[in-house]
Amino acid sequence: MSNNINKAKWIWVMGDFELYHSILLHSRREEFGIDLPHFWDLSTPYPNVSFSKNFSAKEDTSFKVFAHGKGYLTLDDVRHRLNEDVFVSKGDHSVSVFVISDGLGLPCIYINSEYLKTDTTWTSTHMTSQIHPVGAYPEYFEPTDNPEIFKFEYEEIIPKSVKKSKNKLVADFGKETFAVLKLDNAKADTEYEVFYGESLEEATDTEYTLVHIKISGQTSYTLSGRAFRFINIQGIDADKINIKAEYEFLPLKDRAYFSCNNKKVSNIWNICAYTFHLNSREFFLDGIKRDRWVWSGDAYQSYMANNYLFFNNEITKRTILALLGKPPYEQHINTINDYSMYLLIAIKEYYDNTGDIDFINFVWPRAKALYDFISSRTNEKDYICARPGDWIFIDWSEMDKSGPFCAEQILYWQTKNSMAKLAELAGEDSEPYTKSAATLKKSIMKDFWSSEKGAFIDCYTSGLNNVTRHANIFAVIYDFVCKTKSRSIYKNVLENDNITQITTPYFEFFQLIAYCKLGDIKHMQNKFESYWGGIVAQGATSIWEQYIPSRKGAEHYEMYGMKYGCSQCHAWGSGPIYLLGKYCLGVSPSSVGYKTFTVKPKLGKYKTIKGCVPLPEGEVYVEYTKDKKLHVKATASGGKLIWKGQEYELVKDEEIIV
Amino acid sequence: MSNNINKAKWIWVMGDFELYHSILLHSRREEFGIDLPHFWDLSTPYPNVSFSKNFSAKEDTSFKVFAHGKGYLTLDDVRHRLNEDVFVSKGDHSVSVFVISDGLGLPCIYINSEYLKTDTTWTSTHMTSQIHPVGAYPEYFEPTDNPEIFKFEYEEIIPKSVKKSKNKLVADFGKETFAVLKLDNAKADTEYEVFYGESLEEATDTEYTLVHIKISGQTSYTLSGRAFRFINIQGIDADKINIKAEYEFLPLKDRAYFSCNNKKVSNIWNICAYTFHLNSREFFLDGIKRDRWVWSGDAYQSYMANNYLFFNNEITKRTILALLGKPPYEQHINTINDYSMYLLIAIKEYYDNTGDIDFINFVWPRAKALYDFISSRTNEKDYICARPGDWIFIDWSEMDKSGPFCAEQILYWQTKNSMAKLAELAGEDSEPYTKSAATLKKSIMKDFWSSEKGAFIDCYTSGLNNVTRHANIFAVIYDFVCKTKSRSIYKNVLENDNITQITTPYFEFFQLIAYCKLGDIKHMQNKFESYWGGIVAQGATSIWEQYIPSRKGAEHYEMYGMKYGCSQCHAWGSGPIYLLGKYCLGVSPSSVGYKTFTVKPKLGKYKTIKGCVPLPEGEVYVEYTKDKKLHVKATASGGKLIWKGQEYELVKDEEIIV
Repeated sequence: MSNNINKAKWIWVMGDFELYHSILLHSRREEFGIDLPHFWDLSTPYPNVSFSKNFSAKEDTSFKVFAHGKGYLTLDDVRHRLNEDVFVSKGDHSVSVFVISDGLGLPCIYINSEYLKTDTTWTSTHMTSQIHPVGAYPEYFEPTDNPEIFKFEYEEIIPKSVKKSKNKLVADFGKETFAVLKLDNAKADTEYEVFYGESLEEATDTEYTLVHIKISGQTSYTLSGRAFRFINIQGIDADKINIKAEYEFLPLKDRAYFSCNNKKVSNIWNICAYTFHLNSREFFLDGIKRDRWVWSGDAYQSYMANNYLFFNNEITKRTILALLGKPPYEQHINTINDYSMYLLIAIKEYYDNTGDIDFINFVWPRAKALYDFISSRTNEKDYICARPGDWIFIDWSEMDKSGPFCAEQILYWQTKNSMAKLAELAGEDSEPYTKSAATLKKSIMKDFWSSEKGAFIDCYTSGLNNVTRHANIFAVIYDFVCKTKSRSIYKNVLENDNITQITTPYFEFFQLIAYCKLGDIKHMQNKFESYWGGIVAQGATSIWEQYIPSRKGAEHYEMYGMKYGCSQCHAWGSGPIYLLGKYCLGVSPSSVGYKTFTVKPKLGKYKTIKGCVPLPEGEVYVEYTKDKKLHVKATASGGKLIWKGQEYELVKDEEIIV
Repeated sequence: MSNNINKAKWIWVMGDFELYHSILLHSRREEFGIDLPHFWDLSTPYPNVSFSKNFSAKEDTSFKVFAHGKGYLTLDDVRHRLNEDVFVSKGDHSVSVFVISDGLGLPCIYINSEYLKTDTTWTSTHMTSQIHPVGAYPEYFEPTDNPEIFKFEYEEIIPKSVKKSKNKLVADFGKETFAVLKLDNAKADTEYEVFYGESLEEATDTEYTLVHIKISGQTSYTLSGRAFRFINIQGIDADKINIKAEYEFLPLKDRAYFSCNNKKVSNIWNICAYTFHLNSREFFLDGIKRDRWVWSGDAYQSYMANNYLFFNNEITKRTILALLGKPPYEQHINTINDYSMYLLIAIKEYYDNTGDIDFINFVWPRAKALYDFISSRTNEKDYICARPGDWIFIDWSEMDKSGPFCAEQILYWQTKNSMAKLAELAGEDSEPYTKSAATLKKSIMKDFWSSEKGAFIDCYTSGLNNVTRHANIFAVIYDFVCKTKSRSIYKNVLENDNITQITTPYFEFFQLIAYCKLGDIKHMQNKFESYWGGIVAQGATSIWEQYIPSRKGAEHYEMYGMKYGCSQCHAWGSGPIYLLGKYCLGVSPSSVGYKTFTVKPKLGKYKTIKGCVPLPEGEVYVEYTKDKKLHVKATASGGKLIWKGQEYELVKDEEIIV
């Protein structure tokens, strides 16, 4: 994200930056002029901390500690003040800085001197004997930086059109955005109402606009960042106001693209990517207007899309740390059983994709505590079941959740597999997890697999033997079943129109992964064109939370019983970036952290394709041209092309044409 | 403390006010111009909370929610804004208010309407299924009150004398105080240095003054509250400055007094009481200058003194809640093993003195978690031993701590007894605690009791068989041993000059309790007159942290290697209030919460005594006059006088003369 890798940076106790900003973020949702904080518990940063480092000065020198909070430092056990030059003689020294949050904030420090800089080589404590790594981001590298304010970048944007009528102004910024509105030439003695609309209808149908605020007392305004495409300002002489905005964003670089013979496809793909950009902020949000919260299920899909668009590990780690919080665990992540499990599975998948062992070592005690919480609430058969305060979600569909629910159990099995790997990485015994996964698998196969239906049933205790897609999809994508049973699921569930269809893009994403894993790329491509393409055909500039083709016009904006309740920019709409990158361009890691990777393109229904997928370092370019030639180039080593049953080694920076 | 009992009050999640103010308090210690936060971990308030209540409106009405934090309310499940009138129809309703701390503070709310007021009948959550009581103090009863600012009272004080010389001003406020300095007629372009002294030497010996600050840029100043008697201001035209101060205090009412035929005694007692006042602030502090922190060992003694001076339960509860924090426990309270145990013992003693079962129910899960932490770190014999990060303190004396240390084990035994009672009160099984206490007792008697020495040895693993006073004192005061062994300890330890003397007033207090329990009141009285009287004879206006009679003049102010390191106003100097009230006036509860109590005066060396001791409601007045008549009156029922082997029922408000 920045080139400040070797520079001094502000440091804090690892993970606390994320907890601090998670609290701030989750307090910012607004609906109908009401502040709407989230409905789950969040952890807080440690209030009292220390930072330590041994260092060597090659000559007599001095340094100064900048801090957010109050405290002192010791240099070789002698106390000194913060914010003052401290003399250091040539030689070896040890320094510790003690900071307590003044009020309750994020205790953090910064030193930038010749022989002593704050960076991730420091260690920290929260004043117990437990030693933590420190957190740091290259964006906070100046003494005047304040890690208590999340740093975005800004770019001026002006409306594509402004319609004025008496005491009213309606501006169209041309596409969905998240921006800080700047208003000039207002009258200080007028109270204006500002209506934010993701659609023109939402901005102007003011009784039902979700986000609107009242402002008065100034002649110019800089308003907090919010999601919108249309702005409607009402009040005496509102039509005299000059309006512009600052697009507020993270400078995450697109490292992928996709196009094919269907000209519309690259546009849909670009809109998916833009949607993902808008939702990639402090953390991976669900939607930029609503909920503007971090949900572990939604985030799980964002980690996947991220690896096929930005491959930015920082935002994945920030999101995991914010969701994971700190023990003790008294409720599931976001209150949802499945969301706790996605988080543990995601941590293991993060390792697979990055090989970032430091992060695993840091989160392991928290992950273990969360797993212990999950497993302390299972029933006598070790099945996940609904305990007080639990939300067995999986999806909004109608399902038989009257007893232990199959999809939860398969997720739990995958959670145990993930924990086994994490335990091994953390140097602990993985066997209890592996054993318990094997036992659970046996029970699931016995209780939930119906030979008669050739599929998993929702619930074995009700006698209904109801089949829905969800558990069966998980069984395929987590390799819970063998190929024969997978094919049986494909035939009896996925391709069976009698089984209730998936209604959310959220679970549709999992279903499309299952289709792709089963080799049916065309199904995914068709869905991409019809469903995602269907949204874009409605004039959407970002992907919606929900799309029901039978609806017309503003009906598309209704959801959750609210006329404009459907988020018009929802992260889970970005799934095709992952699907096309992984299954059509065919790029995936074959060992931890992409040390080796395979490129196994599948055209599916497309005649030509042209795309790029990021690697941790470098990219893979894949093109299949009209003359039926495949061009593949990777700008990193370790790649292998698999094409028509043949294998080709990919030499870094060398294009293969076959 | 206030008559606002039935009024609306600000409410928060029980315990969080204390955690919030504990963080603020512990960040305020200063030494040599350096901010010196404490060296242990502290818990934080929950950032995201809800408050709920069912209520009935006798007519159509409205209410408004004031809040610190952002959020909304639901009235019968319909959302409304905070800070706006909400209409309520006649009838039954349920209201919930959701508040997230804006930044990280103390989420709290206030409603004062005809049929709906915030008070302790509300419940709260931190957004899990766990339901908490709410906290409230009568001092925060107006919409404009802010529970994030601790409310003190203020009283103008002016210096008794001011000495001016060129560019220098030295003011003497006549006695130790804690006050907000107010300076006028300063020059904005001058930087002044303000030196705070508990003694004239400390204020003027500027190189060594512990607390000093630099100020500039204003013509008048109101400085933060600090401890001092003398103020020395230096800087150009400092002598032109007008100085006064606002004494900052809690309006805790003295409900006790003590005098006797020795005219000096009441003055010493009054100075003990004043010392205690100064240290009774947000919580029971150790000292008002240094450390200005809350230490569980010091606080334990303050709970006792409190019951014989203010009998104010709020400050005891505040202190317990601040010290106890929230699980998970990763270190001992103040990092000290004994301090964790005093806290659990204190909770049980608080119940004995008050019968406050609500408080016990609230703290029980935290107390249990702390106990589990303690017991998770014992050795194979269930002995307390030093684990990494532990501080086996007991006292500053030279002791044999090379293996399990006897005094810790007796405290642990008393902790188990306390836990048994608390478990029983919380409706849980007390037997594991009782059984384990009995087992521990057997081990202690076997390993630590030396028949040869007629006393407990420090440590049985070293072979040194060293005897110090501490374990033996605990054995007496916690009734660990029978009368015979107590007498043996009296003879072989307490009265044995070969056993190293106690050097701190802190442990001297425990020793004097032991003396009193063994019937030797005179020893306590003599010590009071010589030790406490000795401090007062030096011109002290509050009791010191340490007094070594052989020292002279400013030598008394030296401690911890600092010329003025000895606190001149230390709470643990207030022990005589407890000792004289309990053992000389002889007032103590004989059943929970003083439902019944005994008055068993013991003159000791005094010819006449006159004193008063508070009860939860009412007081006991005891006077023994020159004509050898004992006058006793209680303004509460339940009392029994025991005098010369006779028992007399004390009728409320009726004086008995015998």
